[in-house]
Amino acid sequence: MAYPTPEAAESAFYAAFEARDLAVMTEVWAPEPGTFCVHPLTTPLAGHTAILAGWRAIFEAAGRFRIAVTVLSERREPGLVIRLVEESLTIGSETGPRPPILATNIYRQRDAGWQLVLHHASPVQSGQTESRPTPHRIVH
Amino acid sequence: MAYPTPEAAESAFYAAFEARDLAVMTEVWAPEPGTFCVHPLTTPLAGHTAILAGWRAIFEAAGRFRIAVTVLSERREPGLVIRLVEESLTIGSETGPRPPILATNIYRQRDAGWQLVLHHASPVQSGQTESRPTPHRIVH
Repeated sequence: MAYPTPEAAESAFYAAFEARDLAVMTEVWAPEPGTFCVHPLTTPLAGHTAILAGWRAIFEAAGRFRIAVTVLSERREPGLVIRLVEESLTIGSETGPRPPILATNIYRQRDAGWQLVLHHASPVQSGQTESRPTPHRIVH
Repeated sequence: MAYPTPEAAESAFYAAFEARDLAVMTEVWAPEPGTFCVHPLTTPLAGHTAILAGWRAIFEAAGRFRIAVTVLSERREPGLVIRLVEESLTIGSETGPRPPILATNIYRQRDAGWQLVLHHASPVQSGQTESRPTPHRIVH
């Protein structure tokens, strides 16, 4: 299945994430080469089979998620939309959200509609701001 | 300035990074809205001015870099190339590289050639693999 807009694809993606719904997650991702998914701090998953196996492992290992998503930046190219979002996750019975996650999400259009082709998520270290990169600890 | 291929733009990007050359770095990035740059664990920088200020701060704070880049995945769309790379950085007089950094780099084509529009870099936690996401520590 594909979605009528990139926004609809993104909504389906995060709804599937929240509901731990592997069937919807399978439909959100484009079934083609050149897709990849980076979960925070882990090595990349390339291709539909590996990406969905990763989501299955996450869904099996954790309780229900609640996710608030804020779009920070968006770039539209012909047939492609790139969004930088901030994800705020609350997991299971935790009472408040975890530190924010940044994600680059890319959706591409085909005749049938829009699907997800890239998700690169990474944590933001508390106290880090854009004006003070700290090369001694991380550097780039 | 723009570059004849995405590979040439990427080479110029990492050469400027290694040489701490702000003039070349300024030319590598497309001077247009909708660009953004995420350095590992930091909040995003949006737009040419903020992105270059970030690189200036990094270049002023650290010694010379040596960077080895491995392309892990590539996706080509009309006028756009998306690459997932692994960066191995050695800084100043350090004797060996730091833990690897994953980066999503996106280059776009205009009449004049190719320039960088997105760089999202994040660390890989040692011991994390794609088959074992650890939701209790990071989730997603």
